Amino acid sequence: MLKPQYLSALISAFFFLTIQILFAQTRARELGVPFGILPTGTLNSITDVEGVRVGHFTKIEGQNIRTGVTAILPHGDNLFQEKVPAAIFVGNGFGKLAGITQVQELGNLESPIILTNTLSVAAGIEGAARYSLAQPGNESVQSVNALVGETNDGYLNDIRGMHISPDEVIQAIQSATEGQIQEGNVGAGTGTVCFGWKGGIGTSSRKLPESLGGHTVGVLVQTNFGGNLQIAGVPVGEKLGKYPFKDALEKSDGSCMIVIATDAPVLERNLERMAQRAMMGLAKTGGIASNGSGDYVIAFTTHEGLRIPHSIPSQQLQKAEFLGNDDMTALFLAVIEATEEAIINSLFAAETMEGKAGKIVEELPKEKVLEWVKNQHIER
Amino acid sequence: MLKPQYLSALISAFFFLTIQILFAQTRARELGVPFGILPTGTLNSITDVEGVRVGHFTKIEGQNIRTGVTAILPHGDNLFQEKVPAAIFVGNGFGKLAGITQVQELGNLESPIILTNTLSVAAGIEGAARYSLAQPGNESVQSVNALVGETNDGYLNDIRGMHISPDEVIQAIQSATEGQIQEGNVGAGTGTVCFGWKGGIGTSSRKLPESLGGHTVGVLVQTNFGGNLQIAGVPVGEKLGKYPFKDALEKSDGSCMIVIATDAPVLERNLERMAQRAMMGLAKTGGIASNGSGDYVIAFTTHEGLRIPHSIPSQQLQKAEFLGNDDMTALFLAVIEATEEAIINSLFAAETMEGKAGKIVEELPKEKVLEWVKNQHIER
Amino acid sequence: MLKPQYLSALISAFFFLTIQILFAQTRARELGVPFGILPTGTLNSITDVEGVRVGHFTKIEGQNIRTGVTAILPHGDNLFQEKVPAAIFVGNGFGKLAGITQVQELGNLESPIILTNTLSVAAGIEGAARYSLAQPGNESVQSVNALVGETNDGYLNDIRGMHISPDEVIQAIQSATEGQIQEGNVGAGTGTVCFGWKGGIGTSSRKLPESLGGHTVGVLVQTNFGGNLQIAGVPVGEKLGKYPFKDALEKSDGSCMIVIATDAPVLERNLERMAQRAMMGLAKTGGIASNGSGDYVIAFTTHEGLRIPHSIPSQQLQKAEFLGNDDMTALFLAVIEATEEAIINSLFAAETMEGKAGKIVEELPKEKVLEWVKNQHIER
Amino acid sequence: MLKPQYLSALISAFFFLTIQILFAQTRARELGVPFGILPTGTLNSITDVEGVRVGHFTKIEGQNIRTGVTAILPHGDNLFQEKVPAAIFVGNGFGKLAGITQVQELGNLESPIILTNTLSVAAGIEGAARYSLAQPGNESVQSVNALVGETNDGYLNDIRGMHISPDEVIQAIQSATEGQIQEGNVGAGTGTVCFGWKGGIGTSSRKLPESLGGHTVGVLVQTNFGGNLQIAGVPVGEKLGKYPFKDALEKSDGSCMIVIATDAPVLERNLERMAQRAMMGLAKTGGIASNGSGDYVIAFTTHEGLRIPHSIPSQQLQKAEFLGNDDMTALFLAVIEATEEAIINSLFAAETMEGKAGKIVEELPKEKVLEWVKNQHIER
Repeated sequence: MLKPQYLSALISAFFFLTIQILFAQTRARELGVPFGILPTGTLNSITDVEGVRVGHFTKIEGQNIRTGVTAILPHGDNLFQEKVPAAIFVGNGFGKLAGITQVQELGNLESPIILTNTLSVAAGIEGAARYSLAQPGNESVQSVNALVGETNDGYLNDIRGMHISPDEVIQAIQSATEGQIQEGNVGAGTGTVCFGWKGGIGTSSRKLPESLGGHTVGVLVQTNFGGNLQIAGVPVGEKLGKYPFKDALEKSDGSCMIVIATDAPVLERNLERMAQRAMMGLAKTGGIASNGSGDYVIAFTTHEGLRIPHSIPSQQLQKAEFLGNDDMTALFLAVIEATEEAIINSLFAAETMEGKAGKIVEELPKEKVLEWVKNQHIER
Repeated sequence: MLKPQYLSALISAFFFLTIQILFAQTRARELGVPFGILPTGTLNSITDVEGVRVGHFTKIEGQNIRTGVTAILPHGDNLFQEKVPAAIFVGNGFGKLAGITQVQELGNLESPIILTNTLSVAAGIEGAARYSLAQPGNESVQSVNALVGETNDGYLNDIRGMHISPDEVIQAIQSATEGQIQEGNVGAGTGTVCFGWKGGIGTSSRKLPESLGGHTVGVLVQTNFGGNLQIAGVPVGEKLGKYPFKDALEKSDGSCMIVIATDAPVLERNLERMAQRAMMGLAKTGGIASNGSGDYVIAFTTHEGLRIPHSIPSQQLQKAEFLGNDDMTALFLAVIEATEEAIINSLFAAETMEGKAGKIVEELPKEKVLEWVKNQHIER
Repeated sequence: MLKPQYLSALISAFFFLTIQILFAQTRARELGVPFGILPTGTLNSITDVEGVRVGHFTKIEGQNIRTGVTAILPHGDNLFQEKVPAAIFVGNGFGKLAGITQVQELGNLESPIILTNTLSVAAGIEGAARYSLAQPGNESVQSVNALVGETNDGYLNDIRGMHISPDEVIQAIQSATEGQIQEGNVGAGTGTVCFGWKGGIGTSSRKLPESLGGHTVGVLVQTNFGGNLQIAGVPVGEKLGKYPFKDALEKSDGSCMIVIATDAPVLERNLERMAQRAMMGLAKTGGIASNGSGDYVIAFTTHEGLRIPHSIPSQQLQKAEFLGNDDMTALFLAVIEATEEAIINSLFAAETMEGKAGKIVEELPKEKVLEWVKNQHIER
Repeated sequence: MLKPQYLSALISAFFFLTIQILFAQTRARELGVPFGILPTGTLNSITDVEGVRVGHFTKIEGQNIRTGVTAILPHGDNLFQEKVPAAIFVGNGFGKLAGITQVQELGNLESPIILTNTLSVAAGIEGAARYSLAQPGNESVQSVNALVGETNDGYLNDIRGMHISPDEVIQAIQSATEGQIQEGNVGAGTGTVCFGWKGGIGTSSRKLPESLGGHTVGVLVQTNFGGNLQIAGVPVGEKLGKYPFKDALEKSDGSCMIVIATDAPVLERNLERMAQRAMMGLAKTGGIASNGSGDYVIAFTTHEGLRIPHSIPSQQLQKAEFLGNDDMTALFLAVIEATEEAIINSLFAAETMEGKAGKIVEELPKEKVLEWVKNQHIER
């Protein structure tokens, strides 16, 4: 017969394992957290937008290196030669996003979107540029607009060490694939902190009903910001005692990079309007775009008919079919919902991490959150 | 002895009366709806910012006229001669806000802020201009930048009739007072619709703790927009069956004008950043800044040391003391919280209204909402 | 036989008459002033862009009223129902341009462009709105975005009197015609002052060679600004002793409204880029966008395939063919050249005017200018 | 006795030598080219603004490397700890300027401004960041906003080779000195092309009269753009047969980076307005901001009372004295004039260069230009 202490250990192990499996396999929505009214895409991921690829390079070394790179590609062809309409909205410009003005001026994206840490933007640019210059067909290219965003992972990561190399950026790009994406402590989210808990990479998507066009909107976030955490309307930050101006770690600073992909036929002006709405999704999680937050939203469309060849014969018109302003509202709602959910997904996927100088950032106590959410929504 | 049916009627009457009194006298917060973590000012109103005056002109005539004007003045002196730092953020520019570029270029406000209906912007400009030209001391003034915002009350109001005159705008300005403000179906909120329910004017404020500067932030809103209504985290829109793309009335269009006053010593760049955060407060109520929404945020400071005289001798420097970027976060949070609460206050204050062609817009069923909010937050 | 003194008088008279006729019938270019390298359209006017209509209402009454209205219509159909792509660039926002944010947000123009004086913007809005509401087919319209620009003619005009009525604005719209445009002291240019000389309305156009697309770009200006006047490179301001900070009248303040029409198939983002270049044309005349100048550029395309119906069935795509970024440079150059020439045309057409309180603004001494220009360019 | 042919050769040689010396030692203004009405500073250089330092790193190696770095520092102290008010205006955003959004959001500059070639922006960021991180007092800094601009020198330089290293960027920073600046084929101007002629680095300044405040405005440009060259009003491009759409080399593309320094007490909003005017100075040289041009203007003030310490105790107010809007016009004019002159200075200083694959870019034929300018202005 089992001795009580063994039994207890066994039960603990079993319980732990169950929880692990539960969380390893499930995401907030599957655990019962509601997010708005629109249905998700198949994977509930930015990669539900056909053609979109995501690649991570994660660097966890020794006690002090906790960082990485995440690359997002609109399609699998030569992006420099086949640009896509794109736009950027600045939620709060205390950040180093490189490449922004060309996207805004020309309305297109010509290189992979790179996310990394604040002091590795240079590596991001060099990596993205070298990757583009080396692509077959780009032999005579002399100018590449690398779009590189960042958040500051310096709490857990030795950021001053500039531990990302251009080659590692290229690895992230080259590893990009369609299908399921890893969330949490991975790629550019490896060392991030969100609402005082471990943040990371998160993703979500919405698929509009056919009556509203049937388009897909996917969002990917790198969460490293603060505020007054709210999940499905529950004031989690207040309940857990982590909210703005309460304690030191939760100074609400940091940043959030948000990337929106859609297959909807939308030109750059309306992509910018979509981008602007992502900050409203962030707001619903309790984010406050604090002074120190670098919050940027990049939006692009993969709609094939809207691709912009790099070389167009002079005076040859671009032909396009695209949605008018009146059809944008459903896409706005999709952005808001998917951004909120992607942020919460990053918190649900991220696990407790120890980093620089032994500092530890705990993961969100998901069980408690789920309990609160359940109680709240029981009578809906 | 009372017959049971009379007793029942009496009880009903009593209950109804109680509810009436309750709602006539109380606002969402007092009825138990929680809004964030910062304390309010004394009146929980934009007029908690010392010197700020608000005036309404309400026009309800016959079946078809349901409109009005609301005027907001930063102080009681000659505003043209004593301008105040100001900024504007465009949440969604499908609106007719007049006067925006001069505020953005020069960083100041020189005339009362006027809110009215979409087709009465001309009356608003003429009224504000005539008022300013006629003020003692402005005899030689040849240029006035009237700042006139609007939302479209054409569902309940015969908006094509352009029923507001410049004189009525001047009346609104001249009636402006400090102290308690009327909310709901009043002034520019007389005929508005919000989340499918009767909207109107709402206000709220936050007073930062002394450790964060002790400054006050006040918000006034004219609510006429749509989305997926959420109150204190409760998905009220979904529960009541009014949410985007559900039915015709709730097309989520409309607009929201938001005015922020503060006594904090903040220059125009940081006022603009505060203004940008108001859209995050709107997002927390479920607003989605739909395509057809004209959402604008005007922010100004009443801080006396920052007033800008109209006539400064050439080469005489302006002297100013103001908060740096690092102290802005608490003010951002105050804006977000007060905007959310002001919007909900507009819904709580507005009453069912019948208007143009007999159309009726119901008020929000507050009892249900309060029940849901209470249930949700019972175990906090 | 004629006495010598009579002969001399006769010769003088004859010479004067000749000059008068010369100037009455000719414009700067015809008098030998060179403007860039691109050819003009047939009329060297904004109306070279097919379909564009211009109408003036001029109000000269008594000693003190010197003002007016100029209306520009992209086409002769119902503009509200058939909007055109449009964009606006703010050169210096010290002005009252109404309607700007909706054009920027939605990328289109839905009502006639109205130019008038600073304190008649309200009349401009009301006039344009009433005109649009009354057009057949607009019976159910409840929202019109009137685009009304202005400059301050208060030096010659009793601007505080607000002497323009909405009806007079409608008159300007209804009188709009294709073909030749009156320049100088007409419409919104009636009372304006430019570089210390009498300004007014001016226009010019460029027709690109077929190898560059064959498109036409037309510009109309309302000139009321200052600086260091330069004509065909000749420092006219310095030669005539009127330049910034030299004397009181020439304080270099004022404003310039610039309207660009094109038939090129260009979407709103590239229209905005075209608009931005107009300030470079203004710069070539010596304009300096002084603090007090309200300098705005409105650009639209009349390209028929790009019209935007007001009512599009949900989810129906707009089909468009348009120029890519790489083909914009020639259009930029056309804007710069036509803007420069339109401004100089306004100065050449405007005649000495006496106005408010007997103040006189002299016309540019064209003969001197022509002499200088001729000498300079003789050996080219 | 000398044979005639030798005499002739001797005279030619002597004449050539004289010209050489003349041009080596003098600049456009000294050679008789007039530029506006305001007086220059002592050196007619950005370094007339006290404290401003400029450093060049020039890389000319083998046949194919023609590039470099130019660094501009507002003062000699630790810039990260003592930031300066700054602003940026985008003339045409087809460029890779890194660091822009933080300057715009926070209104300040915290690291040296780096100019280099398009594909060396990454090296520029890394160099500027490493330099800042290594400065005494910055040991705990985890975030640096490097501001790195570029133009594309790929016609003469093997730009794909990315021949600038972060260390060379640091060399440029560390070599920065006050006093006279080298112009022409130096630093970031080593390989640039302007109006079809050899471009490079140029600089100029204006010193306002005491009655207008006595402030100094300095401008430094990296010229690599095209258009219809005009010098002192003379249509040089047309006279020399190099103008837009004339031939292949002169496609008018390229870019221009413009840096404005001033000692005037001006806050960031008005610095942005100053920056916007620089494009008007560029316009006066015939620049057209072609589609492919990345034209950016960075403006900062060195006014000591306006420095912004990195660490300010919470709630401690910044004290500042600064110019109001009404005093800006003279500074605008100074920017326009100094920008025009700096661009022409770059052309006068740059010498014919042979580069990548043996391609040659000729220097501007200055003698001809001077002849034309002299003839034009003889009777002024």
